[in-house]
Amino acid sequence: MKFQSLYSFLKTDIDLIERELEQAIYSRSPIIYNSSLKLLQAGGKRIRPIFVLLAAHFGNYDIGKIKNLAVALELIHMASLVHDDVIDDSDIRRGKPTVKAQWDNRVAMYTGDYLFARSLEYMTKLENLEVHKVLSDTIIEVCIGEMVQMKDKYRFDQNLRDYLRRIKRKTALLIAASCQLGAVASGAPPHICKKLYHFGYNVGMSYQIIDDVLDFTGTEKQLGKPAGGDLLQGNVTLPVLYAMEKPGLREAIYTVNEKTSQKDIKRIIEQIKQSDAIQRSNNLSQRYLDRAIAILDDLPDNKAKKSLKEIAKYIGKRKY
Amino acid sequence: MKFQSLYSFLKTDIDLIERELEQAIYSRSPIIYNSSLKLLQAGGKRIRPIFVLLAAHFGNYDIGKIKNLAVALELIHMASLVHDDVIDDSDIRRGKPTVKAQWDNRVAMYTGDYLFARSLEYMTKLENLEVHKVLSDTIIEVCIGEMVQMKDKYRFDQNLRDYLRRIKRKTALLIAASCQLGAVASGAPPHICKKLYHFGYNVGMSYQIIDDVLDFTGTEKQLGKPAGGDLLQGNVTLPVLYAMEKPGLREAIYTVNEKTSQKDIKRIIEQIKQSDAIQRSNNLSQRYLDRAIAILDDLPDNKAKKSLKEIAKYIGKRKY
Repeated sequence: MKFQSLYSFLKTDIDLIERELEQAIYSRSPIIYNSSLKLLQAGGKRIRPIFVLLAAHFGNYDIGKIKNLAVALELIHMASLVHDDVIDDSDIRRGKPTVKAQWDNRVAMYTGDYLFARSLEYMTKLENLEVHKVLSDTIIEVCIGEMVQMKDKYRFDQNLRDYLRRIKRKTALLIAASCQLGAVASGAPPHICKKLYHFGYNVGMSYQIIDDVLDFTGTEKQLGKPAGGDLLQGNVTLPVLYAMEKPGLREAIYTVNEKTSQKDIKRIIEQIKQSDAIQRSNNLSQRYLDRAIAILDDLPDNKAKKSLKEIAKYIGKRKY
Repeated sequence: MKFQSLYSFLKTDIDLIERELEQAIYSRSPIIYNSSLKLLQAGGKRIRPIFVLLAAHFGNYDIGKIKNLAVALELIHMASLVHDDVIDDSDIRRGKPTVKAQWDNRVAMYTGDYLFARSLEYMTKLENLEVHKVLSDTIIEVCIGEMVQMKDKYRFDQNLRDYLRRIKRKTALLIAASCQLGAVASGAPPHICKKLYHFGYNVGMSYQIIDDVLDFTGTEKQLGKPAGGDLLQGNVTLPVLYAMEKPGLREAIYTVNEKTSQKDIKRIIEQIKQSDAIQRSNNLSQRYLDRAIAILDDLPDNKAKKSLKEIAKYIGKRKY
């Protein structure tokens, strides 16, 4: 089943958002325009805009108004991607060279700043200060998360709680905000906005865990980048944490640092894949997903609720 | 005459802003907090907050409200400084090691993002969407300016217009916005807000030209960093543009690139200092300043107007 078919009634509106995004990044400065355009054209599922539009169906759905929020959230996501690529030293994302690789870290940094500023511009069009407040709080947490992630690299004495807090900031918060704000901006009742926030949070947690699992189990073709990159860069993800509960494997993982050879890393990755770490990680992801779906049960029935449920299920099964 | 004495009636309020800034950058994340705190403690004249408070005197002055704007503008300025230091590869600013030098480019990047996000948070407290709009437009222009500045490095076939547009984005726009928004947020009449914008723009242009002159004429002690850094980094500033009108000197300047020796650069800098380029640059700066002061004449008389005038005059005479 194609992902797009899960929200087919939104097709016209999602196409509109795509065109708005193209307009939003337009700049007379050719470097900044080209680097942003490359990033936009590299694609992505546009999960944040989709969640904004779906959540907006729980209030008075007005695409002319809500589109600005959807664009703003995708721009923030794009900005964080460019800045992340600087941090991760990534040369490839979604099978394409990163901004940082095609130009340099400096272009990547200012492209990110530019996209942040553009996103602020779109937020302003919305004329809703509660939305601004939630969003600035979210960005602050995301930034703190990035710093913590940097600090925690190659630190193997972490626990599950450290990991969960990190992926909350890295992924779940912005998805939660997308769901919540789509509803807030459409005037949905507060208890519904809150439920949607928790739905987004749980979906986001599940999504990031699967991402972290796929980094081990996916092929280079599926991932659009070489597998095992997380461990190589010292990111201690859930499969690593679970694998470290095995004596022997624990000691091997502790030896990993910036200088570990590709061959040694590959051997450790194979061992992690053969342990129960992958299955246990998938189980935890599924638990978040089940919780997300259970939250939906409390929401009024409509086509958006049906879509949210199907998207959640799809995320649980995704292979890339 | 001490700079602080030019706005002594604001002392209590400026002290309050300083404490608010200390609170604003507080974060549970020690790296982000330490890097922001270092930046804050490195000082600076706090020109943007001062202009916000002075401009606010043309409306209903309410420090409880206006302080959020003053803090937001200083945070944006600080964010742009950290990101600039990455671009410029600067290891020293105001006589202290930069964030980039003490930690690394990545910490500098996220510290900047964090400060941007905090500034957005303070803007939201203000509950005025026009202010948000002006500010996002300003940040977009500042970002574009940074990209253009990068692209224009070591490009000596520039003209005065290129330079003026660059320093407008680099410095004048945010100072203009500080003056304008202080008035807007205090409910001053639109024609006064506009005048204050133009005052800030002209002061900002003058300020940056003097900065660019001091980079040639200042001592290392005055500048808090080695002199001549701009030319060394390929920044084509006003003294360079004027000096290039001299045959001989023009050819020498055109040879400058990343690999030019310190000795050759020093020789060229000496020649620029001995040409009329410095005097001509000072003259242009003075013209902007005269215009700024003339604009003030149209504003209603009050103690803020007197302060703005004295600050403008002080800027014309500053030696660091």
